[in-house]
Amino acid sequence: MEFLRAVGRLKGLPRTGWLEAGVEEPESVAEHSYRAAILAMVLADLQGLDAEKTMRMALLHDVAEGEMGDLTPEQKRRRGPAHSRDEVEAVDRILSTLPETLAERYRIVWEEYREGTSPEAETATQADKLEMLLQALEYEEAGIDPSRLDRFWRTRVEGGPTSEIAKALMRIRRGRAVPSV
Amino acid sequence: MEFLRAVGRLKGLPRTGWLEAGVEEPESVAEHSYRAAILAMVLADLQGLDAEKTMRMALLHDVAEGEMGDLTPEQKRRRGPAHSRDEVEAVDRILSTLPETLAERYRIVWEEYREGTSPEAETATQADKLEMLLQALEYEEAGIDPSRLDRFWRTRVEGGPTSEIAKALMRIRRGRAVPSV
Repeated sequence: MEFLRAVGRLKGLPRTGWLEAGVEEPESVAEHSYRAAILAMVLADLQGLDAEKTMRMALLHDVAEGEMGDLTPEQKRRRGPAHSRDEVEAVDRILSTLPETLAERYRIVWEEYREGTSPEAETATQADKLEMLLQALEYEEAGIDPSRLDRFWRTRVEGGPTSEIAKALMRIRRGRAVPSV
Repeated sequence: MEFLRAVGRLKGLPRTGWLEAGVEEPESVAEHSYRAAILAMVLADLQGLDAEKTMRMALLHDVAEGEMGDLTPEQKRRRGPAHSRDEVEAVDRILSTLPETLAERYRIVWEEYREGTSPEAETATQADKLEMLLQALEYEEAGIDPSRLDRFWRTRVEGGPTSEIAKALMRIRRGRAVPSV
């Protein structure tokens, strides 16, 4: 039950990157994770990968934030190795309230995602980034100043269908948005 | 892309049941679907079912709402067979922007969920309901008048681990909440 409550806290956790970009009442981590999991499913299916593992990774990739809050890449860099250690401990605590076989299974999946050591892990990571780019595009369309969203578009997305989708998003952006200097 | 945009609309769609119960700024359909998918994974794993199919069902179960909005069970009953027809059409429209093999695959999964014709479909349905009960409990804990949430607790949840969790939630509720009469 405590596992499900920790997951539930992601509903009330706004994504820090959007707050910093000046989006009022931005999406929650749960909302991001939902579309990221859908994207993970689609990208895995398009490439004939193990969709089950890819979806598990996308669903679990941000659970540590239920304890730690949502840190931006910059904040993580600044905290250095301490951040990684804290993150592992948070995930272990959150998973520890599940039956042991499940906790172990989910921990392995989460670790593999984090290490990026399989095509499924790479695909779940790409889904995470693509979801963010699509959301950035939607915030622009909703009237957020494009120049405040520029840094999100410097995200690198690579590989097959993922980079195709990223390129399509960028084309939409260039075609429509006021040049943001 | 249009498929992902339709999925994205679930982020901005508040769950109607909570609005009717007087919850201000309730969770979105995307937030509900996120935890429902996690629960679907856990319940499928606990029972040794096909977790891949169960997660797909949970992720896709509410996509039609991206076009139709979130209707309560009462509203659906009132609209009768017209509702089912509209829902199928909405799902077909949303999926039609995907590559055909994926659209067909997701349509079959969505249909199986809707018909409830497999243990995985039953489990995804139970995950949907359990997620709602846990959220009801959390809203009570956050100060929403329990009497306004009573009707959610009349939801029937059956079968193995699902009913165990539902019973545990009800025990927590009885143990803590002010009698709601």
